[in-house]
Amino acid sequence: MTDSPGEDQVAEPVEAPRPGVSRRGLLGLALGAGAAGLAIGAGAGAATAAAVGRAQQAQDAASAYDFFGTHQAGITTPVQDHLHFASFDMMARTDREDLVSLLQDWSYAASRMTQGLDVSATGAIGGSPEAPPDDTGEAQGLAASGLTITFGFGPTLFENDEGDRYGIAAQRPPQLQKLPAFLGDDLDPEHSGGDLCIQACADDPQVAVHAIRNLSRIAFGRARLRWSQLGFGRTSRTTAAQSTPRNLFGFKDGTANILATDDAALDESVWVAASDDPSWMAGGSYLVARKIAMLIETWDRVRLTEQEAIVGRDKGAGAPLSGGDEFTEPDFDATAKDGTPAIPVTSHVRLAHPDANKGIQILRRGYNFVDGNNELGRLDAGLFFLSYQRSPEQFVTLQRSLSTDAMNEYIRHVGSGIWAVPAGAAEGSYVGAALFA
Amino acid sequence: MTDSPGEDQVAEPVEAPRPGVSRRGLLGLALGAGAAGLAIGAGAGAATAAAVGRAQQAQDAASAYDFFGTHQAGITTPVQDHLHFASFDMMARTDREDLVSLLQDWSYAASRMTQGLDVSATGAIGGSPEAPPDDTGEAQGLAASGLTITFGFGPTLFENDEGDRYGIAAQRPPQLQKLPAFLGDDLDPEHSGGDLCIQACADDPQVAVHAIRNLSRIAFGRARLRWSQLGFGRTSRTTAAQSTPRNLFGFKDGTANILATDDAALDESVWVAASDDPSWMAGGSYLVARKIAMLIETWDRVRLTEQEAIVGRDKGAGAPLSGGDEFTEPDFDATAKDGTPAIPVTSHVRLAHPDANKGIQILRRGYNFVDGNNELGRLDAGLFFLSYQRSPEQFVTLQRSLSTDAMNEYIRHVGSGIWAVPAGAAEGSYVGAALFA
Repeated sequence: MTDSPGEDQVAEPVEAPRPGVSRRGLLGLALGAGAAGLAIGAGAGAATAAAVGRAQQAQDAASAYDFFGTHQAGITTPVQDHLHFASFDMMARTDREDLVSLLQDWSYAASRMTQGLDVSATGAIGGSPEAPPDDTGEAQGLAASGLTITFGFGPTLFENDEGDRYGIAAQRPPQLQKLPAFLGDDLDPEHSGGDLCIQACADDPQVAVHAIRNLSRIAFGRARLRWSQLGFGRTSRTTAAQSTPRNLFGFKDGTANILATDDAALDESVWVAASDDPSWMAGGSYLVARKIAMLIETWDRVRLTEQEAIVGRDKGAGAPLSGGDEFTEPDFDATAKDGTPAIPVTSHVRLAHPDANKGIQILRRGYNFVDGNNELGRLDAGLFFLSYQRSPEQFVTLQRSLSTDAMNEYIRHVGSGIWAVPAGAAEGSYVGAALFA
Repeated sequence: MTDSPGEDQVAEPVEAPRPGVSRRGLLGLALGAGAAGLAIGAGAGAATAAAVGRAQQAQDAASAYDFFGTHQAGITTPVQDHLHFASFDMMARTDREDLVSLLQDWSYAASRMTQGLDVSATGAIGGSPEAPPDDTGEAQGLAASGLTITFGFGPTLFENDEGDRYGIAAQRPPQLQKLPAFLGDDLDPEHSGGDLCIQACADDPQVAVHAIRNLSRIAFGRARLRWSQLGFGRTSRTTAAQSTPRNLFGFKDGTANILATDDAALDESVWVAASDDPSWMAGGSYLVARKIAMLIETWDRVRLTEQEAIVGRDKGAGAPLSGGDEFTEPDFDATAKDGTPAIPVTSHVRLAHPDANKGIQILRRGYNFVDGNNELGRLDAGLFFLSYQRSPEQFVTLQRSLSTDAMNEYIRHVGSGIWAVPAGAAEGSYVGAALFA
């Protein structure tokens, strides 16, 4: 945001939304209409300020993604460089109306921030000088930076120890269950689960952090941050144009990911179909997050051939050990000179491959993380694994297949969560509206 | 690094350095000579592999900074976007030779990584397939990304409870003392101090993390990581071309920083002069690091006028409250309509200004950080403050002046450290050589 609003950021006069105060009804108002044309209908409201926004300084239009649409953004969107992921729990004594108003307020704020706008029309400096600003301000002057904000509903939102808090237990997807225990799980409950999740991805970490911070603030009194995770160095690619990045084991990661252009694979493996149960999840997906600690100091002492045997690919080019280049399909029947499989039976690439899993695929969106170091002087580092799938069963099948993965000696799953990610919100509506219809 | 080395990355054959094994003598050998011409003399050594490097993919020459030079890089170098800072303690039963060899090995590795090369000539995939690779590999394919690696010596390196471990107590700069306690300090000893420090700054976080990880690995058996900190969103500018970024209070930060082009100010305030004591520090500087937790949820509830009164500048443009634009000098005599000072007497900008501190200036190089959240659901966020000064007394004076800073209500200093940062290494030598001469 700059000092004076540009012509194209001047919005219809709108009531200034205030954190902690429900913006019910506000969603019928006009939003600051940027290039993406966010205006979502007309409605009542007192005039206070013009919308101003960071979008003015965006380098190119491609760096801003629509929040509204058939599917939520941040799933097939080309993977951005940075992640701030946050899990929330609803607060005690909140009711259905609180939940709906929170989702409305979050949707409104997300629709603005993804366009490089402040969190509300009055924003960081446009409101009353005698009130706290609506927007915390650290993203002023920064472009939209490809920000996507993706919301999900955890199993406990539908039903927990206190019961059916929001009258939605009957709408719970039967497949939305806490994940089963897997071999090698060493889960920290404080870094697992959550009633709600928000995935913020952007090409500027400050933009992603600004989004989570402001959405947390908007949730005040209704939901509270349970755990959060920053990530950098995407470990997936979702377009053919993106080079394959490397994880902290030094290997290319995400070579065989589903591409955003592969509509058939997306329909088959990622998007919930209209015929799937429940119908309110049509166009949505299921998100699994796993915080995977890597024992990098141990890994770094493994000889190169052994590292490559564990992964099933060579470390330089990322080609399967059966030969070819990075994008050559692995030949699992190929043998080495000694007659053993060229791609070992305990290799990660073999066990995770669709051929070993009845054709199952998932859409991955992982990030590297480093969270300081432990008292032994070892970096607290690893992979924050995110995957989207049409049914959680896909992830469960793959993860079980990996129980004999030779890589398990060098990793620990320390955090876990699963969320139902509903379809995208229609303009003028909010994420999850179909659940409450 | 790519699969085949480019013509200009092919080095003289050199002995493969191995982590944990001293590379004494190796520093007389040829290094992989990139565009920057790193060759540092001739020497013996078995041929094993050609040097290959990430520099091939560097976008432009400006993104690689020389490691060798009059001053260490990373002080007046244009501030990069990302930081990985690490503090180390020497291990028990290490001697002077261990310390010297560590500094030699670190210098060698740093001279390569800053040019976009792997940590050694054999690197991530060029060594024996039956040995662990020298380089951990996650920066293969990435450009030098403006990486700078800056080394410092803490007070405890010269003398600690065990005495003068390395025979350098007599060379200790008299001014290199643990910082005095300041009002509002809430320091965590686990996140303070350290015998040695390394500041890695780069425009790609994976490149900065790769540097610290590999330098930690090289230190194996000699020094151990004590604490480390990732940062993003620089909160300083060191060139006139850099826009002033914002800290997590949403304000522009670093407007009045010393610029790298201001040689007079650098000589006066940053570089240790040849006439200063001790002489081995000539061309060096003193680094202070402060981890400053920001109580952002509390700050976010402060009204805009109050936020601006605390900072002394307006939030949008960053102009001093006495008027003008961001780069207008504050007029501390200006009064508001009610006759009170336009820039309040407890404002940060007034108390930190040279006018209030006998002309004292420091060179700042701060970064924002977010380290997850606490159990109350509040983001563990703040500013990782780094400053370089000719004498630690400059920082001490300024920090004492800030004891009446109205901002103190919203911040806590939770980590602290001070290090003597020696001059840059000459080609063929290593950082700190003058100390051991």
